Amino acid sequence: MTPRRDAEPAAQPRRTRRTGRRPGNPDTREAILAAARGAFAERGFDATAIRTVAAAAGVDPALVHHYFGAKEDLFRAALAFPVDPARLLPTVLAGGPEGIGERLVRTFLEVWDSPVGAAGVALLRSAVSNEWTARLLREFLVTQVLRRVLDHLEVDPAELPLRGGLVATQLAGLALTRYVLRLEPIAGAEPATLVAAAGPTVQRYLTGDVR
Amino acid sequence: MTPRRDAEPAAQPRRTRRTGRRPGNPDTREAILAAARGAFAERGFDATAIRTVAAAAGVDPALVHHYFGAKEDLFRAALAFPVDPARLLPTVLAGGPEGIGERLVRTFLEVWDSPVGAAGVALLRSAVSNEWTARLLREFLVTQVLRRVLDHLEVDPAELPLRGGLVATQLAGLALTRYVLRLEPIAGAEPATLVAAAGPTVQRYLTGDVR
Repeated sequence: MTPRRDAEPAAQPRRTRRTGRRPGNPDTREAILAAARGAFAERGFDATAIRTVAAAAGVDPALVHHYFGAKEDLFRAALAFPVDPARLLPTVLAGGPEGIGERLVRTFLEVWDSPVGAAGVALLRSAVSNEWTARLLREFLVTQVLRRVLDHLEVDPAELPLRGGLVATQLAGLALTRYVLRLEPIAGAEPATLVAAAGPTVQRYLTGDVR
Repeated sequence: MTPRRDAEPAAQPRRTRRTGRRPGNPDTREAILAAARGAFAERGFDATAIRTVAAAAGVDPALVHHYFGAKEDLFRAALAFPVDPARLLPTVLAGGPEGIGERLVRTFLEVWDSPVGAAGVALLRSAVSNEWTARLLREFLVTQVLRRVLDHLEVDPAELPLRGGLVATQLAGLALTRYVLRLEPIAGAEPATLVAAAGPTVQRYLTGDVR
């Protein structure tokens, strides 16, 4: 197992053992990230192997692991996604299915209201204007965020994609109106107000009647 | 009363009687629209007078009326908003408060699924990347869309802004995921599926318990 890295990759690459084809120079990381963006956008997360990314970047797979850790971490770095969903998941899941909608909205707002929210706004702007980024963000949302939450719910598996997509409509709409369009009173609302209002919506999309 | 115009302003200005300061040349319409964009974004819809727009554009107010009709129509032309909300309102309101959430979502999807949806996508993209357009779109949503719906509901007036904003989060999220990010299965879902799922959400935001 490759150890997890929780922090954003440092701007300065660490000293690496020499791995063969390509020395650890400042361009190597960017070459790997560019190859990862292409692979994840084109094939999706599941069908992309670290080995494929490494080949496209012209480096040894061990170097990709060394710089970026597991495939999930590489995906997050490729998208410059500001937080690691895996770290937030226990908070959202704690307590079981009941109240998961409110916890998901609360956690979502905490992240976007924090300093990393600016990176979220930049990512959303980029995805809206750039089809390539949109594909990456879409794939990230489905495989790294929604699937992880939905895997813990006891609902008809056939309904999972629709439920996940519906959750995405409400959360994306909150992000768009509160942080990008800055529509009042959503932009200035207390998080608790939005949790009370939108939490039950997300709860119904996750576990309730959506047909 | 100035007569309503339902169609988009024609690319070719009509022949106009001479109104004094500025002759009816092809630049006149664009000068009026630019002045209108500035005024609506800076002061808002209510505080903007046709007279102010005309002065900023250096034309007679009668010419503004002649080219664009009422202030609502001028606003819509300034934003290049693809449909006239006033024309859709009777469909949404027919039948009273019950079911208004489903009718609003259905009407919203009908517009976005139609050929004019492309203009909606362009407008959303522009608003996301440009603060000026975001201000215009925000003001348009509040005064031309949300207020008109909310005016017909018997709910606590103090709650109207929040209710309107919440509706905007769900509808904006649907537009963003279905038409811009093209997230499946939302992008390819039958309208009826989305109406059944998101209609009750919008209904609760409009008339239900949101605190």
